[in-house]
Parts: sequence; structure tokens; C-alpha cells
Amino acid sequence: MEFLVYAAPISGIIALVFAYGLASWISKLDAGTDRMKEIASFISEGAMAFLRREYKTMVVFVAVMFVVLGVGIDWLTAVNYLIGAGFSVLAGYFGMSVATKANVRTANAAREVGMNQALKVAFRGGAVMGLCVVGLGLLGVGSIFIILGIDKMSVITGFSLGASSMALFGRVGGGIYTKAADVGADLVGKVEAGIPEDDPRNPAVIADNVGDNVGDVAGMGSDLFESYVGAIVSAVILALTSTTMDKTAGALFPMALAAIGIIASVIGIMFVRGKENTNPAAALNRGTYVSGGIVIVSSFFLSLSFFGSFNNAYAIIAGLVVGIAIGKLTEIYTSSDFKYVKRIASQCETGPATTIISGFGIGMLSTVWPILFIVAGIIVAYDFAGLYGIALAAVGMLSTTGMVVAVDAYGPIADNAGGIAEMCHLPKEVRVITDKLDSVGNTTAAIGKGFAIGSAALTALALFVSYSQVVGLKTIDLLNPMVVGGLFLGSMLPFFFSALTMNSVGKAAFEMIEEVRRQFREDSGIMAGTSKPDYARCVDISTKAALREMIAPGMMAVVAPIAVGLILGIEALGGLLAGATASGVLLAVMMANAGGAWDNAKKYIEEGHHGGKGSTAHTAAVVGDTVGDPFKDTSGPSINILIKLMTIVALVFAPMFLAFGSLL
Amino acid sequence: MEFLVYAAPISGIIALVFAYGLASWISKLDAGTDRMKEIASFISEGAMAFLRREYKTMVVFVAVMFVVLGVGIDWLTAVNYLIGAGFSVLAGYFGMSVATKANVRTANAAREVGMNQALKVAFRGGAVMGLCVVGLGLLGVGSIFIILGIDKMSVITGFSLGASSMALFGRVGGGIYTKAADVGADLVGKVEAGIPEDDPRNPAVIADNVGDNVGDVAGMGSDLFESYVGAIVSAVILALTSTTMDKTAGALFPMALAAIGIIASVIGIMFVRGKENTNPAAALNRGTYVSGGIVIVSSFFLSLSFFGSFNNAYAIIAGLVVGIAIGKLTEIYTSSDFKYVKRIASQCETGPATTIISGFGIGMLSTVWPILFIVAGIIVAYDFAGLYGIALAAVGMLSTTGMVVAVDAYGPIADNAGGIAEMCHLPKEVRVITDKLDSVGNTTAAIGKGFAIGSAALTALALFVSYSQVVGLKTIDLLNPMVVGGLFLGSMLPFFFSALTMNSVGKAAFEMIEEVRRQFREDSGIMAGTSKPDYARCVDISTKAALREMIAPGMMAVVAPIAVGLILGIEALGGLLAGATASGVLLAVMMANAGGAWDNAKKYIEEGHHGGKGSTAHTAAVVGDTVGDPFKDTSGPSINILIKLMTIVALVFAPMFLAFGSLL
Repeated sequence: MEFLVYAAPISGIIALVFAYGLASWISKLDAGTDRMKEIASFISEGAMAFLRREYKTMVVFVAVMFVVLGVGIDWLTAVNYLIGAGFSVLAGYFGMSVATKANVRTANAAREVGMNQALKVAFRGGAVMGLCVVGLGLLGVGSIFIILGIDKMSVITGFSLGASSMALFGRVGGGIYTKAADVGADLVGKVEAGIPEDDPRNPAVIADNVGDNVGDVAGMGSDLFESYVGAIVSAVILALTSTTMDKTAGALFPMALAAIGIIASVIGIMFVRGKENTNPAAALNRGTYVSGGIVIVSSFFLSLSFFGSFNNAYAIIAGLVVGIAIGKLTEIYTSSDFKYVKRIASQCETGPATTIISGFGIGMLSTVWPILFIVAGIIVAYDFAGLYGIALAAVGMLSTTGMVVAVDAYGPIADNAGGIAEMCHLPKEVRVITDKLDSVGNTTAAIGKGFAIGSAALTALALFVSYSQVVGLKTIDLLNPMVVGGLFLGSMLPFFFSALTMNSVGKAAFEMIEEVRRQFREDSGIMAGTSKPDYARCVDISTKAALREMIAPGMMAVVAPIAVGLILGIEALGGLLAGATASGVLLAVMMANAGGAWDNAKKYIEEGHHGGKGSTAHTAAVVGDTVGDPFKDTSGPSINILIKLMTIVALVFAPMFLAFGSLL
Repeated sequence: MEFLVYAAPISGIIALVFAYGLASWISKLDAGTDRMKEIASFISEGAMAFLRREYKTMVVFVAVMFVVLGVGIDWLTAVNYLIGAGFSVLAGYFGMSVATKANVRTANAAREVGMNQALKVAFRGGAVMGLCVVGLGLLGVGSIFIILGIDKMSVITGFSLGASSMALFGRVGGGIYTKAADVGADLVGKVEAGIPEDDPRNPAVIADNVGDNVGDVAGMGSDLFESYVGAIVSAVILALTSTTMDKTAGALFPMALAAIGIIASVIGIMFVRGKENTNPAAALNRGTYVSGGIVIVSSFFLSLSFFGSFNNAYAIIAGLVVGIAIGKLTEIYTSSDFKYVKRIASQCETGPATTIISGFGIGMLSTVWPILFIVAGIIVAYDFAGLYGIALAAVGMLSTTGMVVAVDAYGPIADNAGGIAEMCHLPKEVRVITDKLDSVGNTTAAIGKGFAIGSAALTALALFVSYSQVVGLKTIDLLNPMVVGGLFLGSMLPFFFSALTMNSVGKAAFEMIEEVRRQFREDSGIMAGTSKPDYARCVDISTKAALREMIAPGMMAVVAPIAVGLILGIEALGGLLAGATASGVLLAVMMANAGGAWDNAKKYIEEGHHGGKGSTAHTAAVVGDTVGDPFKDTSGPSINILIKLMTIVALVFAPMFLAFGSLL
């Protein structure tokens, strides 16, 4: 079994090589007309500039954390932390630089070749992000294992914390960026000035397109990088703390599973090829099912060879099934093919108030089934493989992350392609193709959000269990008022966090609105089409606002668990983590699905139902969609990070809590 | 100490006698002109008819529960259940019949005497409800104790369950009724037809005024009756299961405290007397502070004489302080005197979407401090008096319920008085007085809502602790996946429950909208003022819809804990209760405060800010207010009941869980 140590880093490298191949293929494609290249360069430069400034801002944070970890915990953990943060940065940087090349080439493929080629370009662009996430994640964890060996492997939590802290700023900053730009562009451009989406006269239009990349590509990628690493790390830690399991086998097993997941994802990615005049969703689904199927079959062999029974495979499959189920359920609540979105659309006829009420109600209703699946998954995983099984369920769910991220990142690339087509006044047929790709992208994005939340829930739970083992808690007793107190505090934090991020979007959007209004007011040539708007200023506003606004919620996520651990003690902190995970998952599902449902209700009305565009129902639907924007793209997804980050912080700082005891 | 057994029922009787005195005083007042009497009789008949039909509907439910309890648990518990349900009905019936007399007499007092007298009538009307709630609650618990003695006292949980099941239907049914009527009256009357609030030409206007009574008087009263009884019962049960405490002293102590609270409330009520040209709020606050002060001072004596130390007094005071703090915090987040409501109002300028986002954000933000206070209260209470202390904190908080309900029920009476003044075309000065009283009533209502949630949280926690002791759980361990599963399920239930109630309001309001539109369409004389609208039909629609829609959420609240207890076991049920309480409190606070803040942002704009009535900001504010209506008056308050009811169901059915074991 010795050679298995190398399986993880090798398959990580395979993923990266494959990603490099796809990236080169994309780079060689023609990017179209000069105008297209120019617009694409605006987007690309804006996105990369944001990433660079975001990373620069975080250097201070990372440096402080490095020292805190080094002094407070140990320097090996601190170094691991740096590596984890660095790998997350690399994944985001590579992934997004390719995504911002793929967008314009997708538009050009639609223009010059057709739907099939456009789908291929967009999907391969997304696949680079997916492969970078899993490749770097597994390469990191696997290499650290080889270098440090099983005895020092517990410092791997530092790697996970590094991934988490980057994810925090990536998701929160990216989420604020994208929605400030989006809301700003929509409210002034579409509503006040009456110009269409992606109109080049709108000064915020580039910022809006940049936002799709930094929020939906880089932010989402960092979120799943965190989940992916966190799930593997939690399984490793549970193996290390186990008294009944062979530690090496227990630590290698999740890595071997992840290695198979990477191969499965690569194969799945190759299965995604559309045919002209077929639904692109079918091609994407095929890839997902192929990679899922490979993991399921392999998990039986793997479980048998490692542990001599199928039990661990059942835990893995439980997680995988929960992930797929949550994705499908998300579709039911957010796609206009089902009754819920139609119900919201019909409520739009009686105005914005009933639109909001019904969407909010459906968001809350949509929490029921995902929770039932998560609970069933936990119970099944535990029944077959104990606490370790819960971590395996998370690893199982995340094993096909490469494929999931590929499908997910495809959406914003297609969306960007449509934007570029519009801004460059490409022929109508091009827009028809990109619209089709984009509409599939909306569904996959909603499914991806569901998956991200579900994986965050399982990862946080697995890390929570690891935390309890590392601090040596035999029970976390809800009859202890400290635990109940922790539970209440924890349940409150996602609400607080969402309030902060929502407020940030409001403030940033307000600045954007003022700027767009100012440009229209001071230069009437913009609306006439004779002078160019100052795109860069809007990009700059979004960037600055996002970087400024991500600090407060970010600090809260790091400080809260440390403070509770030191003041109320380790058992109260356990309560806090459980409470935050439970209420966080619910809030995240509710916000993501309400937002998705409003979005699609608006699109449904725009297709001509209930009076179509320009009707009072449509006006109400636009209100719903705007409310839903920060719900689904900022606050909701940010909660994923919050719950994972708090648990990993608790896990990493466990030695400190044990050393100091609690104040109360 | 023997005579103390009689303190509880005697002070209960004192409260009832005092209530009877106030009721007779109100009845003897002049009800004004014939037109006033006629309008008042419509409201009164509609309200009483609703209560009667509501109770009739519940007879089936109560009968089934009676048999289930008798067969499944024991017949003494079942009989106690009947008595508890009956007492809740009596409190609601008495309280509301006086409230619907006081409304018109308040209007007439404003017409014939002045502000001071009008305040007195309205407040005394509310005081009857307050005194009925505490009088019947304590009379019931105290008499059962005398009759059964300490050994059989554990069946008192049946009494509490009876109170809870009536509260469920009272709060949910009342909440649906009032908002269906309100939203229906507003959307068609104010928005479509452009007639003012409370215009007699609006067919839904009577239903709207009836709704204030059945929702804000009877529904709120039944909610606090449940909390009041539940808190005392949980303390009694913890005394009975205690191994370290004198059982009789432990059981008598909360009753003695409640008896003092009644006397304190009666004295507080007498302190409420306004002076002409002063703020009525000052008079109400004086009464609240007087009764709170009496309880605090007495609790020291009581604690010393029962237990020989002040420790129990500290627990009581912790609860009382948490209650007052939550009330004050509620005011900060929902009154236009503070920055948050002003912030929403300024966001109204950029349309309904930003109005909703900012109000939602503030609702979430407003959860932080109440949770910090609740957690601090729990920890303090436990530190001084153990698990029993948590129940004492709840009893302490609720000791002045008589006063709190009086202040709270005053609001809808003043509101009704204003409606009657408008419908009867009374002189403008009358409306000025009732508007002043009403605006104070809005603040007290918001504070009362905060208090209701806080008391529900503490009561539910106290009952949760009692449950654990009765089923003999030494720990409820969050490392047990069944408990985590229960926690997730429990956290989800308030979301599910709110989705159901919100959806019900939507459906019922839709029916109301259709009916009002139909009447306007079919009889043009209504708008001209030459023919009378068919008020009765609107009252009927609200009534039927409320009765129909309250069934599903009501059944869920009863069935969920029983199902989880039987299928997943008693420890998982513990997790469910803790999860439901935590997420329920957060959701309830968020919804109540967001709703209150939107309401007052609209009123703030109507006072002339941001363009005043008719401005685009006002239109946006109306959307916020309409969204907030079911938030603050239906779904939010219903959650209070849900969390208490589920815990009391778990407590009562504990023997069944122990007998059957769990399926999994």
C-alpha cells in the first residue's frame, strides 16, 4: 500500500497538466474582432487587477495570522497555513485568467462556428478552474503527507485554514464586488436610463462583467477549494485521533478517494461535448453522471481493499447522493419548469410586495428537503462508519468537485460571452447562442450553489467532529448552559454576518449608482453613443468597496470562535459551531433559493407570461430579482465560508484553548 | 409556609375581581352616537363570531388530544389538558369582549372628555385582558396544586399543553385573519381605489378592525398565557425532579413569585394615569417600572425566606432584566427615533428593492443584542440557581405579564378607536387624540412583540430542561449524530412553519382582494357613498380562511416532536427542541423587527420626510410595510408558539417515548 502515498500528488499533477492543456487550447483560439479583444481586455484587466489588489490586501491579514499561528500554535502549522493560502491564490489566479480568456473566445466560437463549439470553449474554460481547485488541493495535502509523514500530519489543519481564509475574502469580497456592480448597473442603466442589459453605454457594464468573474468564478472556486481541502483534512484528522483504526490507512483513504475523484472528473470533462441543436444541459449532465458513477463504483473497491468491508463506501455514497439530491432540489425550487417559480411569477401581478412575500416563503419552504437529506446522510454515514463516516460523506460529496466547479464556472463564462456579444454589436444569431448557453448556466449556477451549501454543511460538520476529538471532548452537552449559550450565539452569527454583507452591498451599490448617474449627467455624449463612458472608474469603485467591506465580516468569522473558545470554553465553542452550522445552512439555502427563484420568475415573465416585459408584473419581478441578488450571490454563499472557517479556526486553535482554559 | 399554598389561587382571584371591576367601569361608560354604536357592534360581533367559530373548530382537535392523552399517558393529564384549554378560552373570551367594548368608548372619551380619559379607557380595556391572563393562569396552576398535592403535581404539564394548543390556533388563526384583512383592505382600498385607511366605503374595513382584536388582543393574550403557564410549570417540574431541593418549596416558590407579580401588576395598572398634554407613553412606562420594581424587591425577600439565600432572586432578576432589555432593544430597531428606521426610510428613495434589502438587513442585525442578553441571562441564572434557575428566569421575566399584556392590548384598542372615529366621521380633534394614542400603541406593540419572543425563548428553554429531566437524560450530546440530526431538523422547522403561515396569509389575502374588487365592481354606489358595502362577507372570508389555514401548521407543531421522539428517540428530540428554539428565536426576532421597522419607516415618510405621502419613497415604503405585515403579525409571532408548544408536547408525551423506545 506504500505506493498509494504517491497517488494523491500524482493525480493532483495530472489534473494540473490536463488543465494546462485545456488552457493552451483555449489560448490558441481566435478572440475575434478588435472590438471584441478590446472589451475582453477591459474585463480581463479589471478582473485580474481586482484579484491582485485583493491578494495584496490579504497579505497583511495572512502575515498577522502567520505570526499568531507560529507563536500561539507552532511554526509548522503556520508554514502549512501559508502554503494553503498560496495554493488557493494560485487556483483562483489560474482559473480566472483562463476564464477571462474563454469568455471572448466563446463569443467568437458562437460567431464563427456555432453552438457546439461555443459550449466546448465555455465549458473547457470552466474546467480549468475545476481542475486547478482539485489539482492544487490534493497536490498540497498529498505532498505535505509525504514530507511530514503520519506523525506530524496533524499540522495539515494549517493548510486547511489557509484555504479557508483566502476563501473568506474571495467569496465575501467577490460577492460584494459583483452585486455592487450588478445592482448599480441595473438600477441606473436598465430602470432609470432604460437601456438594455450589457449596453456599452452603461458605465458600470464592464464592472458588472468583471463581477461575474471575480464573484462566480474566483469566489466560487475558492469556496469549493475550501470545502474540498476541509473535507479531506477532517477525515485525516479523525483517522489520526482514532483509537480503533490504522492511522495511516485512515489518512490515506480519503486521499485515494479524492485521487479517483480527480480521474473521474477528467473523464467526465471529456464526456461533455454537445451536438448542434441539442440542449447543452444534457451534455453537462452526462459529464456529471459519468464522474459520479466512476466514484461510486471505485469506492466499493477502495473500501474493501483498505478496510475489508463495504461500510466506508456506503458513507461515501451517502455523501454523494446528498450532494446530487440537493442540486436537484435546488432546481425544483428555482427553475421556471416547476410550480414554485411559476407561483412567484403569478404573484408578481399583484405587485412587488406579494412578489417578495411569496419568494421569501418559497425560499423558506425550500429548506425542508435539503435538511431531510443532510440529516439522513449524516445518520447513514455514521451508522456505517462512525464519526469518520461523516467526514467520508463530505469527501464523497466533494470527490467530483473538479467536474462540479467546471460546470459551475461555465455559467459566468457563457454570461460574459453574451455580454461581449452585446457590447460588440455582434449579429443576433450569436446572442441567441450565448443566451441559450447562459440560460443553462443559470440553472447550473443554482445547482452549484446548492452543492456548495450542502458540501459546506457536511465539511463543517466533519470539521466540528474533528474539533471535538482534538480537544478531547467526550460529549458536547446541550444540558450544559454554556453549550446552549454557545448554540444561541452560533445560530445568531450567520444572521449577523448576512446583515453585514447585505449592508455592504447596499453601501457599495449606492456608490456605484451615484457614479453612473454622475457620468450620465456630466457627459450627455454617453447616452448618445458619441463618447465613451469611464468604465475604469466603476471598476475601481467596486474594487475599493469590496476590499473595504470584506474586512469587518472577515474579522468576525476569525475572532468569534477564538473569543468564545477562550472566554466560554471549548464545550461552549462546540455549541457555537453546531448552532452556526445549523442556522447557517438554513439561511444559506433560503437566501440562495429565494434569490434564484426571483431571478427565474423575472426571466419567466420576460418570456411573455403575465404580460411580459414592461408589464406591471415585470416591474414587480425586477424588484424581486434585485432583492434576490445579494441574497443569492453575496450573503447566502458567504455563509458557506463562515461556517467552515469558524470550525477550522476552532480546530487549529484547539491547542491554545486547551493551554489557557476558559475565563468563565 | 402552609398558607402559601393559597397565595396563588387567591391572587389569581384578586386579579379576576379587579378585572371584573374594570370591565364594569368600562361597560357603564357611554358608547357615543348611534352610528358609533353600530360600527362598534359590527366589530364586536365579527370578533366574537370569529372566536366562537375558532373555538368550535378546535373542539375536534381538543377532543382528539384528550383521548390520545387519556389513553396514551393518563386521564388525569388529559383532564388537566381540558382545563388548561378551557382557561385559555375564557381568558381570550373575556379579554376580547371587553376590548371590543373599550374601543368605541375610547373614541367617545376622546370626543367628549379628552386625551387623559381616552388613555384611561383604552388602557383599562387592555388591563382586563392582562389580568384575565395572569388571573386564570395562576388560579389554574394554584388550584390544581391544592387539589392534587405535590405527589400528583407532575400532571400539571397537561394544563400547560392545553394552554399551548389554544395559543397555537389563537396566534396562527388570529395572525392569518388580521393580515388577510389588512393586506386585502390596503391593497385594494388604499392602493387601487385611493381611499384612506379606515374609510367606511372599504368593504374590508370592518374585517381589518376585527383583525386587530382577534390577532393583537386575543392572539397575543393566548401567546403570553402560554408563556406564563409554561414558565411556572417548568419551574414546578424541575422542582419535582430535583434531588437536592425541597420539592414543595421548589414548586411553591414560582407560584408565590407569580402571586407577587399579580399584585405588582395591579398596583402598576393603577399607576397608569395620564395628564392632559403629556406623552401617554410616560404613563404606560411608569406602570411598567412600578410593577417591575415591586417584583425585584420582593424576590429578595421571597428567595431568602424560601431558600435562605439570595441566589434564586438573582436568577429571577436576570430574567426580568432580559425581558426589559429585549423590549428596549426592539424599540431601538423599530422606532423612527433611532437611526435604523431612518436608514430604511432613506433607502426608500431608491425604490422598493433597496427598501426590502435594508429592512431585511436591519432585521437580521437586530438579532445580535437580544441573543447576547438571552445568553447572558441563561448563564447568570444557571450560575446562581442551576437548571431550576433557568426556569426561574422565565418566571421572573413573566411575573409582570399582567402589566405587559395590559400595555400591549391597549394598542389595538386605541387603533380601533381611531378606526371608529374615522368611520363615524367624528371631528378632527378626536382623530388627533386617537392618532396620538395609536402611535404610542405602535411602539408598545413592538416592545410587546420583543417581550413575547424573549419570554418564549426562556420558557421553551426551561421546558426543554424539564423535558430532559423527566425523560432522565443525563446529557444531550451534540457528538451523537442523532442529536445533530435532531438539531438540524429542529432548526429547519421554524423556517417550514413560517413558510406555511406566510403562504396562508398570501392565499387568504388574495381571496380578500378578489372580494373587495368584486364589491367595488358590482356596486358603484359603494364608492359614491350611497350604498353600504357588504362588511359581513369580508369578515366571513377572513374567518373561514384563518380557520382553514391554521390546521396544517398547527398539526405540524404537534406531530413533529412526537414523530421525532418515536422514530429517532428522546435524545434526538432534545436536539430538535434546542435547534428549533435557537433558530426560531432568531427568525422571530428578525421578522418582528424587520416588520416593525418597515412599518415605522413608512410612517416616518408620511410625516413628511423624503418627500412625504405620494412620493416615490412613500410608494417603496408601502411595499416594505406590506411585506412586513405577515412578518411581524403572523409568521414571527407564530414561531413563539411553535417553539413552546413543541417542547411542552415533548414533555407531556415523555412517558410514551420512554415506553416505546425509538425506531432507529
